Amino acid sequence: MNIDMIHAAAKRIKGHGRVTPLLSSPYLDDIAGRKLLVKPECLQHTGSFKFRGAWSAISALSDDERKRGVIAFSSGNHAQGIPYAAAHFGAPSVVVMPSDAPALKIENTRALGAEVILYDRETEDRDEIGAKIAGDRALTLIKPFDNPQVIAGQGTIGLEIAEQAKDFGVTSGDVLVCCGGGGLTSGIALALEEQAPNMRARPVEPEGYDDVCRSLARGAIQRNEKQSGGLCDAIITPQPGELTFPIMRRLCGPGIVVTEEEVLKAMALIFQRLKVVAEPGGAVAVAAALFHADEIEGDNVIALISGGNVDGEVFKRALESI
Amino acid sequence: MNIDMIHAAAKRIKGHGRVTPLLSSPYLDDIAGRKLLVKPECLQHTGSFKFRGAWSAISALSDDERKRGVIAFSSGNHAQGIPYAAAHFGAPSVVVMPSDAPALKIENTRALGAEVILYDRETEDRDEIGAKIAGDRALTLIKPFDNPQVIAGQGTIGLEIAEQAKDFGVTSGDVLVCCGGGGLTSGIALALEEQAPNMRARPVEPEGYDDVCRSLARGAIQRNEKQSGGLCDAIITPQPGELTFPIMRRLCGPGIVVTEEEVLKAMALIFQRLKVVAEPGGAVAVAAALFHADEIEGDNVIALISGGNVDGEVFKRALESI
Repeated sequence: MNIDMIHAAAKRIKGHGRVTPLLSSPYLDDIAGRKLLVKPECLQHTGSFKFRGAWSAISALSDDERKRGVIAFSSGNHAQGIPYAAAHFGAPSVVVMPSDAPALKIENTRALGAEVILYDRETEDRDEIGAKIAGDRALTLIKPFDNPQVIAGQGTIGLEIAEQAKDFGVTSGDVLVCCGGGGLTSGIALALEEQAPNMRARPVEPEGYDDVCRSLARGAIQRNEKQSGGLCDAIITPQPGELTFPIMRRLCGPGIVVTEEEVLKAMALIFQRLKVVAEPGGAVAVAAALFHADEIEGDNVIALISGGNVDGEVFKRALESI
Repeated sequence: MNIDMIHAAAKRIKGHGRVTPLLSSPYLDDIAGRKLLVKPECLQHTGSFKFRGAWSAISALSDDERKRGVIAFSSGNHAQGIPYAAAHFGAPSVVVMPSDAPALKIENTRALGAEVILYDRETEDRDEIGAKIAGDRALTLIKPFDNPQVIAGQGTIGLEIAEQAKDFGVTSGDVLVCCGGGGLTSGIALALEEQAPNMRARPVEPEGYDDVCRSLARGAIQRNEKQSGGLCDAIITPQPGELTFPIMRRLCGPGIVVTEEEVLKAMALIFQRLKVVAEPGGAVAVAAALFHADEIEGDNVIALISGGNVDGEVFKRALESI
C-alpha cells in the first residue's frame, strides 16, 4: 500500500468519477471560528465516496476475475459503489447487507444490478457469510476498507483536497474525515503525506462507535461494544482494519468524537448553508468542525461529507433540530 | 447586449464564482425517459445563480459608482447576490424586498451587510420604491433581470453548459431554465447561440405564474394576474423584461408550465437522487424534465436548478410528496 497506487487509481477513475468541489459558507466559518472548507462526496456517483474505492478495486481486476464476479459486504454505501462499478465492467455482483440498513440503500443496491443477501448484524458474522459465498462461487471478495485498491481509490480524495485547497490559499490544517473502518481516512492520510505534508488527517466518529479514536489513543486495535443501532449507520464498523490501522497510527492526528445531536444539527446546517444532503454518518466531520472547535488546530479546517444516502424521515428529524 | 459581454463577465467572475458541476442519476434518466443532465446552481455562492449577475454588474461599475453604493429589489435570491458582491467591492448596498419573502432570505440579506427595506407585494410597486430611494441617495439601481450586465453574468452558465455537456458527449438538446423575468433564460440563450447552436433554451414556469410562456406563445408581453402567493416565490415576476423578452422571443423554444405538485416531487427526487437542495422555484426545470417528457425533444435534456434557498418547513412538505 503506497502513494503510487493512489496515483494509479486516480488515473483509472479519471473521466468516470466526479471531481467534487470544495464548498464554504461565511455562516459556517462563523460557527467554526475559522475558515471551513467542505468536500461533499455526497455528490459522487451512488451518493458517496465508496464509488471511488469500488471503481479502483474492480478496474484493477483481471478479465477472468471480472467474468466470475465480485462480492461485497457493507452497511450500505460500499453496497452501492460495488454494483455500480461492476455493471460498468460487465462483472456480476453479490452484496451481503445488514437487514437493518436503510430501505433506500437496500433498494438502490438491487436496482444497480446486485444480488442482495441480508444478514442480522447482532447475531451473524458478515465475514463468515461473505467468505463462504465467495468460496462457493469463486467470486472475488472486495472488502469495504481492508483492501489496498479500495484504500487507493478513497485516497484520490486526498489528492483532490491538496490541489483544490491551494485555490483558497490553504496548504496546512486538519482534514476531518468521517471514519468507519478507516479506508477513507488512511487513503487520504497517505495522499496528504506526499501532496500536502502540512495537512493532517483526523478521524471523526459518533459517540458509542469510536473504535478508531480509542484505538489511536491506545496504540492498539479496540473494538466497539455495540455493532448496530446508531444513527450514523454508514460508518459503524466493529473495529479498525488490519491494513488501515497501522497507516492511521503512523499518519493521523487524534480522533474526534461527536454526539448524535451534533450530527443532526450539522445535517441541518449543511442543508441550510451548503445546499447539499448529508447522511448522519456523512455529517460527523462537519459536526466536529462546527462544534468541537477547541479540539482543532489552525486557521483553516477541511471536512469531508462522506455520503448523502439518507431516508426522508431521518432528514426531517435533522431539519427539526435547529 | 451581446455575446462579448458574456465572455467579459466570465472573465470578471473567474476565480470568484463556483463552476457548478453537471450531475446525473440513472434513476432520474429512467423517469425522464432520456439522459438528464442537471446544473445545480444552488451550489453557487449565496445559494443561487443570482451571484453571477450581481457580481457581473457590480464588477462593471466605476469606482465612483461603487463608492456611492447600489440598490436592488428582489423576491429573494438577487437580494443575496447583490450584498455579497457589493461587500467584496466595498460598496454599500440597499435591498428592497417583499415582506412575504422567506424569513431565511430576509435574514441572510441583512447578514450579508445590506440595508433591507420591506414592501407589500400586492399593494406597493417595487419599481417606484426602488427608483425613489436610488434617486434620493444617488445609488446605482441594479435591476434583477432587465440589466445587460446582469444578463451577461447569468449567461456565463450557458458557456459552462456548452463546455461541460461535451464531456457527456452531448452537443444538442433542450436546455430547461427556471424562469422569472428572463435574465437567466435570455443570458443562457445568447451563450448557447454561439457556443452550442444545436442546444435551445426553454423557459419553465409554475402554473398561474406563466407570463413568459404565454408571452412567447402570443408574441407579445403578457402579465401575470397574481403577483404573490405561489410556492415558487423565487421566480414570480409581474412580466418578462423589456430587454429579456426580445432575446427569448428570437432564441428560445416554447415554454413549459409545471404544477406545484410536480415541483414538490421534483424537489424530493433531487434530494434523493442528486443529494442537493432545490428551492421550489429552483426545481421547476427538473420537474419539467421529469414530468413533461412529451413536450421535450431529443435523447438528452439539460435542466438548471436555479437556487436552494428554502425553509425547512417547505422542504419537509416536499419530502412527504413521494
